[in-house]
Amino acid sequence: MAYFNNIEKINYEGPGSNKDMAFKFYNPEETINGKRMEDILKFGVAYWHTFTEDLSDPFGAGTAQRPWDKYSGMDLAKARVEAAFEFYDKLGVPYFCFHDVDIAPEGDSLKETYKNLDEIVAMIKDYQKTSNVKLLWNTANNFSHPRFVHGAASSNSADVFAYAAAKVKKGLEIGKELGGESYVFWGGREGYETLLNTDMKLEMDNLGRFFHMAKDYAREIGFDAQFLIEPKPKEPTSHQYDFDVASGYAFLQNYGLEKDFKFNIEANHATLAGHTFEHELHYARIHDMLGSVDANQGHPLLGWDTDEFPTDIYSTTLAMYEILKNGGLGKGGLNFDAKVRRGSFKAEDLFHAHIAGMDSFAVGLKLAQRLLDDGVIEDLISERYDSFNQGIGKEIVEGTTDFKKLEAHALGLGEINLESGSLEKIKAKINQYMLTMYK
Amino acid sequence: MAYFNNIEKINYEGPGSNKDMAFKFYNPEETINGKRMEDILKFGVAYWHTFTEDLSDPFGAGTAQRPWDKYSGMDLAKARVEAAFEFYDKLGVPYFCFHDVDIAPEGDSLKETYKNLDEIVAMIKDYQKTSNVKLLWNTANNFSHPRFVHGAASSNSADVFAYAAAKVKKGLEIGKELGGESYVFWGGREGYETLLNTDMKLEMDNLGRFFHMAKDYAREIGFDAQFLIEPKPKEPTSHQYDFDVASGYAFLQNYGLEKDFKFNIEANHATLAGHTFEHELHYARIHDMLGSVDANQGHPLLGWDTDEFPTDIYSTTLAMYEILKNGGLGKGGLNFDAKVRRGSFKAEDLFHAHIAGMDSFAVGLKLAQRLLDDGVIEDLISERYDSFNQGIGKEIVEGTTDFKKLEAHALGLGEINLESGSLEKIKAKINQYMLTMYK
Amino acid sequence: MAYFNNIEKINYEGPGSNKDMAFKFYNPEETINGKRMEDILKFGVAYWHTFTEDLSDPFGAGTAQRPWDKYSGMDLAKARVEAAFEFYDKLGVPYFCFHDVDIAPEGDSLKETYKNLDEIVAMIKDYQKTSNVKLLWNTANNFSHPRFVHGAASSNSADVFAYAAAKVKKGLEIGKELGGESYVFWGGREGYETLLNTDMKLEMDNLGRFFHMAKDYAREIGFDAQFLIEPKPKEPTSHQYDFDVASGYAFLQNYGLEKDFKFNIEANHATLAGHTFEHELHYARIHDMLGSVDANQGHPLLGWDTDEFPTDIYSTTLAMYEILKNGGLGKGGLNFDAKVRRGSFKAEDLFHAHIAGMDSFAVGLKLAQRLLDDGVIEDLISERYDSFNQGIGKEIVEGTTDFKKLEAHALGLGEINLESGSLEKIKAKINQYMLTMYK
Amino acid sequence: MAYFNNIEKINYEGPGSNKDMAFKFYNPEETINGKRMEDILKFGVAYWHTFTEDLSDPFGAGTAQRPWDKYSGMDLAKARVEAAFEFYDKLGVPYFCFHDVDIAPEGDSLKETYKNLDEIVAMIKDYQKTSNVKLLWNTANNFSHPRFVHGAASSNSADVFAYAAAKVKKGLEIGKELGGESYVFWGGREGYETLLNTDMKLEMDNLGRFFHMAKDYAREIGFDAQFLIEPKPKEPTSHQYDFDVASGYAFLQNYGLEKDFKFNIEANHATLAGHTFEHELHYARIHDMLGSVDANQGHPLLGWDTDEFPTDIYSTTLAMYEILKNGGLGKGGLNFDAKVRRGSFKAEDLFHAHIAGMDSFAVGLKLAQRLLDDGVIEDLISERYDSFNQGIGKEIVEGTTDFKKLEAHALGLGEINLESGSLEKIKAKINQYMLTMYK
Repeated sequence: MAYFNNIEKINYEGPGSNKDMAFKFYNPEETINGKRMEDILKFGVAYWHTFTEDLSDPFGAGTAQRPWDKYSGMDLAKARVEAAFEFYDKLGVPYFCFHDVDIAPEGDSLKETYKNLDEIVAMIKDYQKTSNVKLLWNTANNFSHPRFVHGAASSNSADVFAYAAAKVKKGLEIGKELGGESYVFWGGREGYETLLNTDMKLEMDNLGRFFHMAKDYAREIGFDAQFLIEPKPKEPTSHQYDFDVASGYAFLQNYGLEKDFKFNIEANHATLAGHTFEHELHYARIHDMLGSVDANQGHPLLGWDTDEFPTDIYSTTLAMYEILKNGGLGKGGLNFDAKVRRGSFKAEDLFHAHIAGMDSFAVGLKLAQRLLDDGVIEDLISERYDSFNQGIGKEIVEGTTDFKKLEAHALGLGEINLESGSLEKIKAKINQYMLTMYK
Repeated sequence: MAYFNNIEKINYEGPGSNKDMAFKFYNPEETINGKRMEDILKFGVAYWHTFTEDLSDPFGAGTAQRPWDKYSGMDLAKARVEAAFEFYDKLGVPYFCFHDVDIAPEGDSLKETYKNLDEIVAMIKDYQKTSNVKLLWNTANNFSHPRFVHGAASSNSADVFAYAAAKVKKGLEIGKELGGESYVFWGGREGYETLLNTDMKLEMDNLGRFFHMAKDYAREIGFDAQFLIEPKPKEPTSHQYDFDVASGYAFLQNYGLEKDFKFNIEANHATLAGHTFEHELHYARIHDMLGSVDANQGHPLLGWDTDEFPTDIYSTTLAMYEILKNGGLGKGGLNFDAKVRRGSFKAEDLFHAHIAGMDSFAVGLKLAQRLLDDGVIEDLISERYDSFNQGIGKEIVEGTTDFKKLEAHALGLGEINLESGSLEKIKAKINQYMLTMYK
Repeated sequence: MAYFNNIEKINYEGPGSNKDMAFKFYNPEETINGKRMEDILKFGVAYWHTFTEDLSDPFGAGTAQRPWDKYSGMDLAKARVEAAFEFYDKLGVPYFCFHDVDIAPEGDSLKETYKNLDEIVAMIKDYQKTSNVKLLWNTANNFSHPRFVHGAASSNSADVFAYAAAKVKKGLEIGKELGGESYVFWGGREGYETLLNTDMKLEMDNLGRFFHMAKDYAREIGFDAQFLIEPKPKEPTSHQYDFDVASGYAFLQNYGLEKDFKFNIEANHATLAGHTFEHELHYARIHDMLGSVDANQGHPLLGWDTDEFPTDIYSTTLAMYEILKNGGLGKGGLNFDAKVRRGSFKAEDLFHAHIAGMDSFAVGLKLAQRLLDDGVIEDLISERYDSFNQGIGKEIVEGTTDFKKLEAHALGLGEINLESGSLEKIKAKINQYMLTMYK
Repeated sequence: MAYFNNIEKINYEGPGSNKDMAFKFYNPEETINGKRMEDILKFGVAYWHTFTEDLSDPFGAGTAQRPWDKYSGMDLAKARVEAAFEFYDKLGVPYFCFHDVDIAPEGDSLKETYKNLDEIVAMIKDYQKTSNVKLLWNTANNFSHPRFVHGAASSNSADVFAYAAAKVKKGLEIGKELGGESYVFWGGREGYETLLNTDMKLEMDNLGRFFHMAKDYAREIGFDAQFLIEPKPKEPTSHQYDFDVASGYAFLQNYGLEKDFKFNIEANHATLAGHTFEHELHYARIHDMLGSVDANQGHPLLGWDTDEFPTDIYSTTLAMYEILKNGGLGKGGLNFDAKVRRGSFKAEDLFHAHIAGMDSFAVGLKLAQRLLDDGVIEDLISERYDSFNQGIGKEIVEGTTDFKKLEAHALGLGEINLESGSLEKIKAKINQYMLTMYK
């Protein structure tokens, strides 16, 4: 059966076309620097926001009108799978992502939860046989159930730790079964509400132990997905241990995990941490830790996770710039961890929103590639730092100097002439590129 | 003499041209809806950021390299006037704005300050004879001198109140002398550091009294400039009385000043108040209180007034949308209350930065006009609120119903069908317009 | 039947006592400046947070363990009333507050909803006969149901406007029936998600019309409660029309409603608006607009409405200072619009949390009264502003001067001597008072 | 000569005493857990805020009235040394801290700057002979001069890197000469204004090289001070590389520096990073990286570094709690990196402000020790995490389990019973302790 009867397959119509529901900029077959757009962008649909989300908020009940609302329990779970694959196909995305609880309801016991999962996973696997859609990554939701109120791997209860481990173990098995390219850890409740009742040292040690065991088990079963930590500074907890990429990197190094994990970076989480999206991507990239991306955007004036579909071309451009500099995302991709606004409650809004996001990243990709091709930023940077290619600069970089030599050099200097940073000129240049891309 | 020897007059070269320092989008002679671009945008240069600012910050000395740095005292003041008019001419802007202390140094006494001002005002008036550049607005700096440490019109010292009044009186006379179209009040120190030592009621009453006296004096001398309040929520004080447009409007109504004042709205101040720029413009517009604009932008992740040159096309578009809906800015204009970054310390950066801002607003104007021409937003809004054009909706708007009739209506309703707000689709549409404007 | 079997009536045990669950500072019978503490503080329990709230958040299911969880539908509603009156009695609070949907479930039709409400209201009225607990205020929840997705009185649908009116009409009748001292409007969805699809002028006009009709109906039925607007800047909407007290005051003045409404001020909403709690109270007070208080606190580092129980003595002291300066709260009170943390899910936490809040405000009251008695702040302020009691200052205040006279005065001034604002000394003094109150 | 003629030596008078300028809570000789208060707290005065600061801000000139204002150049520098030692003595603080540029003016050449420094350092050393005041730490100001506009050790200019190295080299020599217990690095300009012109990888690598060279040189000259990094997220740069403790720890680990450096943690910088002060202290402590403290406080609603004197007893208590748990601060101390408000411009405000801060930390120390003595928090935490002392919990902690065993355990669990986190009760308890400390 079909759930989106009034929606046809979304096609590329190009800039300026009049068709209401079509890609204007995303053309999967277009090649950028020799690679297909689809293969660079690796778009994924987030199961939770698109098929499970009801658009409730802390002040109101759900508004979403979904064709599968009439079902419940396992029937609902199955209807969602059917709708999902119809959606992937009509939208034309190559990947999807999910938490365990998104695809199958929790049972009265862990055993029953497993059974529910097995049934749906088998159904998904069947669908994958006749579809090109692949699993970008899956994850365990170890934050929604009341048992995780005090955390999961960082809970004060050893039983909860064990329960979380069982769920991740199952997740790794499912990831392997469905050919997931990566596996994500988002620590929704791994943090604290207050230091006043928290043993942070034990909690962080336990988190480290948990990740080591996860890694060991994945290896044991031959699941070679890229492991990913997803930073977020706060919400739902007051402080989350994986606050941002830098603090996550501190954690991974401290527990000897930095070779086995990379980061799944979300735009809105960057904003909440007080960083730009591109900062988080850049920091991860230069430390060889950029794994995957949760493509959304936040509202700069709102202090919670709004998870909007990405439409800001400046932001998608700077994100794609980092991704291109990274040589792509490897086993990662661009997952739309984004939800339609509460007021966009119609099923067709799901299509409009994904199109908005995909077009925005397609523009970002193309603009970033042009900036790279023309050396707009790279040439400027090379020139700015040229003093480190010779003389005392070269000695600094090569480690052949010391404070005494540097002081001797400094004592011999007259006034130091510096060049302007030219930020206003650079920004104007980027605007010119953006506004004349499609002429 | 010339201060910007290596800079030629800036011309419009158009999108995609290669000339390094040229307008790509701002073409003063281009007509938009029958009016010259220059006359709609009414760009102004801010004397303080362009000719007085040294680019110091709380953690460092000034970095600005200015050709007039070799002068001091009144010689410096005169050199700045010369440089300013050269700058206006080469850049091609029709307006400028200043505080009293920007153009002439304060003397050892108020009398000497007046004398310094008179000399420079005469010089500016001379320059205006051979230049087309006009005074958009002037203002009194009643916040920098230590005497204003506890406020000016809201100081706890009656002497300081009187001193501030004298400076504004002089400012009104200067505004009249130079043909200023508006006169601005920015209450840098009108607010409090702490409630613990503040009589807020007396301070606000005094502010009200001050504005009435200012208005009366302007009328007395026949100075018919538009009076403008400039909201800012905090910095330098912890709380400024003119926090945002709405609180300013509350104040003006409370003191019976709402007919005589409008608002000068600054983008960065909106951000600091937790509002978007367009919100502040929109609120002012629908209350018929939109007077003028301080065109800059803030950094959404930084909590202080960065006063960046505006380059965000989304923001300039939504700003110009409000301005067009307002029927223009009347006696106001777009004053670049923006400073080059500390790292952009060369004199030529002043040109690059203004070009970046002017081009950005030119694009915003053109895009806003196209959105209006095509009814992209207006038609959607008309349709959304159509229920208020008939039936019970019409009765509500016309004031011919009451709670009892409304209850009767509500009791007769079945499920209410609502339409989607379609935000994602609207945002995608705006991107499409933006990216195909210059094709 | 009893729901809190293991909880005894909470008594005042005094500072330093060892009893786990007792008031240490709140002694209802203690007199402060001749009035009973209970009568000054007028504590109220919020039905929604205490009897309806399940402690879910956007990332997880409810954790609350409540003795009435086993019921559903109208049985649940009745169980909550029983539990509520047991709670009020054991805690010893004089007031309660509720939204319509807190006390009775919405039916399939408005008529059925009314019927449910009538049944529960009658039950509450019965309970009130044998209890001293009074209704501080009630309100209509016009934000949770999907029909309010685009607003209630500011909806784009006239039907929704009518529906909201019917609910408020019923609310006014219920308020009258139960003897409510005030009636509150919190505009959860009265604002916008985006300006891009919003007719803000029409929405604000409609809000104004709605409030006029509400006032008229209340008068018609002889309900003389104090009407209260509750400001909040954002959440759930991106921008709420009643952003803060000042913007609410602008609105009320603009629509001629300022004589009929006052403000219900919530601490956490102040924080979200970028204000201190005491600022909002102070602003309302000096404009004679302080009506009632939602007593809670926010987390200064979190950007959403955390609604914590108030425990910060600095904040409760400055709040009580404003309330004492206001001559009390009249028909308002201190309603605990506060919820226990998600991790505080036991029924007994409801008692601990209210005790924490009541004790904190009791301390605040006592400390504020001492500061007033000793003139710690008032004397300082009188002295600081003394220059307005004579000479030119007096003329300013009395309106007998103008800019010319003020200029003449200023020209005759030498250097102006100002006194220090002494903030550090004042803060140290407040600490000394606080730390030696209970010696 | 004396600069503070009207100020007598500050004595401990005790809570409730009436003397205007006296310690009410700080009694250096009082012993807490067997140690003198003075030796635990190790208060230091910040030279820059107390003797150099003029209280200017971005919107106004300095207001500070200082007895040494009449001097200039080296005479001013010498007068400040005299005033400083008089201040230390009258206030009774055991330590001071400075940047190179605070104590001596920069000369026209680096050589002259050295000469100026040498002269003042000799003078300070002389004063130390007859005073008990010691150097807590010194540092190099590598951010104020225009040459550091693009950074110091992370500048794009190798010459600037060398210049910064020379200044730090001199700083290490001065630290040794004056017996400094620690040496601090605050990277005011080590960060970026924009990624668009920045080679962040090279800049961070260079920072790493710089720190290694600093460490090597200190060892070479036998200077065994504790090296300290001072995190701050932003201001003056848009992003500083030492954003917070966690990101600093990531950096130190990445460059192999974590054994040689610890952190100097500032309260206001924590706030700006979105953390509580106690969070930063706690994180550093459990990683054995807590070195020293910049004792101040920020304004939670202001987005810039206000550097207020610390007066919030909640904050000083939680800070002292971490410090006591750390076994003290070793070679670090509590440096008042705090400035009087712009309105507190009198010289006596310097005393009032330091007294306010010292009293606040003295209370914090005493209250923290009582909470520890009574196990208020520690006992609760021990009990909460007790499940890790036996059974599966013990196996987790000891590393003797794996995902398969944990899954088996989880499958055998029924519903998991969790205890409340009891935050409200804990907060009430802390209030009770605080309010009855001095009874």
